[in-house]
Amino acid sequence: MTRLTEQAVRSLEAIRGQKPLIHNITNYVVMNTTANALLAMGASPVMAHAIDEVEEMVSFAGALVLNIGTLSGPWVEAMLAAGKRASELGKPVILDPVGAGATRLRTETAKRILSEIKVSVVRGNASEILALRDAASHTKGVDAVHSVDEAIDVARQISVELHTTLAITGATDLVTDGRQVVRIENGHPLMALVTGMGCTATALVGAFSAVEANPVNSAAAALAYLGLAGENAAGRAEGPGSFMVALLDALYTITPEDLGAGARIVTES
Amino acid sequence: MTRLTEQAVRSLEAIRGQKPLIHNITNYVVMNTTANALLAMGASPVMAHAIDEVEEMVSFAGALVLNIGTLSGPWVEAMLAAGKRASELGKPVILDPVGAGATRLRTETAKRILSEIKVSVVRGNASEILALRDAASHTKGVDAVHSVDEAIDVARQISVELHTTLAITGATDLVTDGRQVVRIENGHPLMALVTGMGCTATALVGAFSAVEANPVNSAAAALAYLGLAGENAAGRAEGPGSFMVALLDALYTITPEDLGAGARIVTES
Amino acid sequence: MTRLTEQAVRSLEAIRGQKPLIHNITNYVVMNTTANALLAMGASPVMAHAIDEVEEMVSFAGALVLNIGTLSGPWVEAMLAAGKRASELGKPVILDPVGAGATRLRTETAKRILSEIKVSVVRGNASEILALRDAASHTKGVDAVHSVDEAIDVARQISVELHTTLAITGATDLVTDGRQVVRIENGHPLMALVTGMGCTATALVGAFSAVEANPVNSAAAALAYLGLAGENAAGRAEGPGSFMVALLDALYTITPEDLGAGARIVTES
Repeated sequence: MTRLTEQAVRSLEAIRGQKPLIHNITNYVVMNTTANALLAMGASPVMAHAIDEVEEMVSFAGALVLNIGTLSGPWVEAMLAAGKRASELGKPVILDPVGAGATRLRTETAKRILSEIKVSVVRGNASEILALRDAASHTKGVDAVHSVDEAIDVARQISVELHTTLAITGATDLVTDGRQVVRIENGHPLMALVTGMGCTATALVGAFSAVEANPVNSAAAALAYLGLAGENAAGRAEGPGSFMVALLDALYTITPEDLGAGARIVTES
Repeated sequence: MTRLTEQAVRSLEAIRGQKPLIHNITNYVVMNTTANALLAMGASPVMAHAIDEVEEMVSFAGALVLNIGTLSGPWVEAMLAAGKRASELGKPVILDPVGAGATRLRTETAKRILSEIKVSVVRGNASEILALRDAASHTKGVDAVHSVDEAIDVARQISVELHTTLAITGATDLVTDGRQVVRIENGHPLMALVTGMGCTATALVGAFSAVEANPVNSAAAALAYLGLAGENAAGRAEGPGSFMVALLDALYTITPEDLGAGARIVTES
Repeated sequence: MTRLTEQAVRSLEAIRGQKPLIHNITNYVVMNTTANALLAMGASPVMAHAIDEVEEMVSFAGALVLNIGTLSGPWVEAMLAAGKRASELGKPVILDPVGAGATRLRTETAKRILSEIKVSVVRGNASEILALRDAASHTKGVDAVHSVDEAIDVARQISVELHTTLAITGATDLVTDGRQVVRIENGHPLMALVTGMGCTATALVGAFSAVEANPVNSAAAALAYLGLAGENAAGRAEGPGSFMVALLDALYTITPEDLGAGARIVTES
């Protein structure tokens, strides 16, 4: 078992033991799904977005997850207030820039969060992550990437530019803090046919971040664990409906030992 | 196979091939369900309601779905802005007047959308559709309808009054553009015991409208396909919980050929 | 069969026969789940929160359910307006003080609702209920409770202080109106691993309250029925995902006779 896999196993044990409270300010579409995923894995979710209570709520939490899907004005202010309070208290903040690059509101909100708050991990797909670059960035665009090695180089550069750890999910997931690069090879194509699977990944990075200080470790552990649950669920599913049900079951039934045996975390450098 | 069934088959093939983006401004209750239904069928859902981004978002979409359940002020403005932009861009707008007739806010909002935006299809149940008539309408009320023939006459008149295609769902579904009238006989009683099944029908009309210009064809195809999925799911369900799971699976597993064999679309005139 | 169990059986028959409309102003996380639970049991859910329509909507309803999870300013005003109108019309109002005690916004909103509206039943866990006490209350805190008898005494005192019936859920549920005390022993530990199970309990108290005037009877019936569904579902579940699906099925398939045979409602005094 590699060092990162061992760390993932210990983190899952810690989540099951400590049941960390994860404060989510997230989109309407996935609130129910991510709350259920966090509960199934052994964490405690809370959803709260009112500007009047987010600073108080985050003070009880082990991590804060900010997700910009179905955004509107008051939510942006609440995310910034909660994020600043979390930073002051030294709590990890995880950002999901849903749809960054698609509309100005989303791109600018994601950038504003990154500039005003210390974000521990950004979890997104490749196009969302590329949309976060500065206008002056010299990093290559997604069209210019022709190999895995180039993709790794680009990811590392953006991580350095944004001063945060990136968890870039796709057929293969990539995690980097600008120096270390890790690939996670767990997962199943059915995961793309259920809404909010990326958002669930982000929430799970939150749960692992609540018990493990190194953001590369916590992001890699979360993605391997969710991917393994997806593989497990796919074997019992007849389509995306039964897949999602089986995935929640798998998040509950997978033991730390199962994770140790099934995680496929590959250290690139 | 009838002409409309053939068209439904071709439309489902087109959706699976093109994966059209469907922009939904819809109610909180069904966001997750309709997103999952659109994904399962092969389309790409996006949910966005902020006035700051809806015009930008709809410009990427193949169709816009407006659903007035769980309405509030800012959402009405966003629906109108998105709808106007969609009209300018020649994109189909589908309206679900959830609860029209129950409260003034819902009735008036539905009417305002119909008067300010070119709506391609309105999908609702009989009482919601009747609530959309003008105060000066001489169309008979629902109590005055004593036969299928009278119901067809009333539907055709309201379609002409509202300048839109109607998809009226119930035990049997009726689609009319004021001239052509089509009955869809697929479906299962369990569909009434899952929340948001009507809203899902509306979202699916959006997906078919993104690939097929004739609103009667796209509405009939969507209702036949969803009804067939309901029939399919009912055979594997023990109640409404397992029914909804099986229905999402069926939306994924039904092939265009299955739709051709199972659709029961009857042209009335 | 005890008197309360007989009453529960008659109430479930009445719900199945009358399909009462239950107006919910509830949190985003559970809207879909509670709507589906109400449909599965035989009631008719409606979700509406706009200040422009809540008074109109509640006039059609058999009961109003107020749930303060994912609260924000405009929702508080809508809850108060709907609650006042419901009181004027003599309709039962059920309150779920989600997270009372965790943040000031939640504690104060719950207390404000209790002071401005005649609430029929408050359904919460022990810490939420304790947070509702007046600052001047001499009732013991949760740490001072060392036995079931003491818990019963405290519950009875808070019920008197708040002038409402309490339904306190946990491993064993307790219902009291300050005089009568009832324990409900149905349920299963998996219920704690699905989000919104408490909120579902509250919505079901709403449905039973629409057909049964005595709040102790309706709360006890709802908790026994939901707990029995949980027991039933647990036997067919592999984890929290399949458990929730099976629970919705069970709410649909449990007959009044099954409830009579399976309810474990114990009158304490």
